[in-house]
Amino acid sequence: MNIALDAMGGDHAPEAIVAGGVEAARVYGVTVSLVGQPDVIEAELKKHDTKGLNLPIVPASQIIEMEDKPAAAVRAKTDSSMVVGCKMVKRNEAQAFVSAGNTGGALAAGILHVGRIKGILRPALIGPFPTLKGACLILDIGANADVRPEHIQQFAIMGSIYARDVIGLTRPSVRILSNGEEAGKGNQLVIESFKLLEQTPSINFQGNIESKEIPTGLADVVVTDGFTGNIFVKTAETTATLMNRVITEEIKKSPIAVFGALLARNSLRRVRERMDDSHYGGAVLLGLSGVVVVAHGRSNAFAIRHAIRVAKQSVEQNILGKIQKGISEIEIEDAEAAASTQPAA
Amino acid sequence: MNIALDAMGGDHAPEAIVAGGVEAARVYGVTVSLVGQPDVIEAELKKHDTKGLNLPIVPASQIIEMEDKPAAAVRAKTDSSMVVGCKMVKRNEAQAFVSAGNTGGALAAGILHVGRIKGILRPALIGPFPTLKGACLILDIGANADVRPEHIQQFAIMGSIYARDVIGLTRPSVRILSNGEEAGKGNQLVIESFKLLEQTPSINFQGNIESKEIPTGLADVVVTDGFTGNIFVKTAETTATLMNRVITEEIKKSPIAVFGALLARNSLRRVRERMDDSHYGGAVLLGLSGVVVVAHGRSNAFAIRHAIRVAKQSVEQNILGKIQKGISEIEIEDAEAAASTQPAA
Repeated sequence: MNIALDAMGGDHAPEAIVAGGVEAARVYGVTVSLVGQPDVIEAELKKHDTKGLNLPIVPASQIIEMEDKPAAAVRAKTDSSMVVGCKMVKRNEAQAFVSAGNTGGALAAGILHVGRIKGILRPALIGPFPTLKGACLILDIGANADVRPEHIQQFAIMGSIYARDVIGLTRPSVRILSNGEEAGKGNQLVIESFKLLEQTPSINFQGNIESKEIPTGLADVVVTDGFTGNIFVKTAETTATLMNRVITEEIKKSPIAVFGALLARNSLRRVRERMDDSHYGGAVLLGLSGVVVVAHGRSNAFAIRHAIRVAKQSVEQNILGKIQKGISEIEIEDAEAAASTQPAA
Repeated sequence: MNIALDAMGGDHAPEAIVAGGVEAARVYGVTVSLVGQPDVIEAELKKHDTKGLNLPIVPASQIIEMEDKPAAAVRAKTDSSMVVGCKMVKRNEAQAFVSAGNTGGALAAGILHVGRIKGILRPALIGPFPTLKGACLILDIGANADVRPEHIQQFAIMGSIYARDVIGLTRPSVRILSNGEEAGKGNQLVIESFKLLEQTPSINFQGNIESKEIPTGLADVVVTDGFTGNIFVKTAETTATLMNRVITEEIKKSPIAVFGALLARNSLRRVRERMDDSHYGGAVLLGLSGVVVVAHGRSNAFAIRHAIRVAKQSVEQNILGKIQKGISEIEIEDAEAAASTQPAA
């Protein structure tokens, strides 16, 4: 399997990206094509022992920066690592593309150069979120800042298929993120989407969910617009980081507490592991006709390695084929349900 | 000073509410008027030693429930504790009203029965959020799920006046919550509000802020719509609660870690205190022509006591007069700035 990796995208590019790519090639035995400026990538590769690993360099002279306007940048920078990586997927020279760069850029490059699954209006970023029962799937966590109810409906359908056919859940429950659990609570988008989700027989819609209920594992799939989803995910990350920092600060104030923390260090390490999302690696851009995984901008080598694992598993599990098949079946199911409620002609 | 307390609103009403009211009357020396069903309140009061405290009961037979539609419920339930409490403020029989009930209900009752400050389109809930430097002010954290850019502009103006005249900050910085720090990132509401905030000379607008930057103390005032603000605040609370739970779970797995945690217990207590928002008590509904404080639905007696403290301080600091004065001055300043950029007639 060949996975194209955007060597130039992310806060710690190219160093952490190339390091993660090398690790992934070694651990998972895949070919990792490093897409970007050859001299920069070569200099990074020299820092590692790459003997026996498949790490070809694919030249791309341009970079889509964080502050670039996604759609315009993708059109203007035709030799950027994102465009070159997506074209490799389109031509099946690579089976997946992984980037820690500008999320909007990856979405725009994916739509323009990989293409969407037939019938899908907007691809969405789907990511797992840790719960006390394991994890739930949230989408959209950042691809589309402004959406309409019919987009939310498609997110719910894609998320349900993913939870059923990739994760293996039976009739996964779907809820919509809102500022109150009661039906009728929410902004206009939530209230209108709620009505549409109720009328979608192919999903197991169970109503609103507040962010406080997500960690309890109340829902298997949580749908939201990409703006709110992004704020949710980043706020959770931030609070966990802040709390770790406050714990360290407070413990350092007392030598006895330092000794106590030393005795509890294995437990505290497990807490960090459970709250850390870097082993989730990346979020799949669901709805494209190719596997594109978006990693966090701040990804280190460990996170990049796991983003490549997510890409590899997405290919092995044939996520794309499952979503395509599920979408066409559901279109029929929902169309039949809609037809049966129409008066006979 | 007389503070009207909604004895019937909140997840733990009436028990925790009455207990908090009794504590507040004792600690702060204020009169706390308990608004609600007299028999229920009397039964709760009997559990406490109330000798020498001023705790009159103000009868109100109805309750606005969490699942009630706010505007309709406020119109229909004219003898509800919320309506009765707000009318007391309007008639200056009480100097403030405190409720842990339905936030939308408190907003609707406040608008209808207390009234808005002249010129304010939408009152907003303003609350402090802990940062490494102290706290920043966030509004709206839940009163208005759908807003327009001109509402966000007024939130920025009210928040700035509050930060300057109540907290005592010089030229407080204002940022808008977004899914990216760069200008141009955000949903349509953020992008349009950004332009309007740039054209508001009375505030010190500094651009977008991501949720991860809020705890660093980058902004004194953060503005957002009430839907996003509510998700932000609740997600942060939830993550902190989840993390405490995970820490307890992991430590209990090892006797040595339990001993370690015992040695570090004072530090861990300080962590909980720093991350706990219950001593903030409640959020002021800014923009009404009377002091209305909304406490968290899950408030315990401690949180209610502090919500009453927030109400007392709001009255003592003459928040209302300061906002009214600030708003009229700013209207002149912004109008002059707008006039100076107009071509001469």
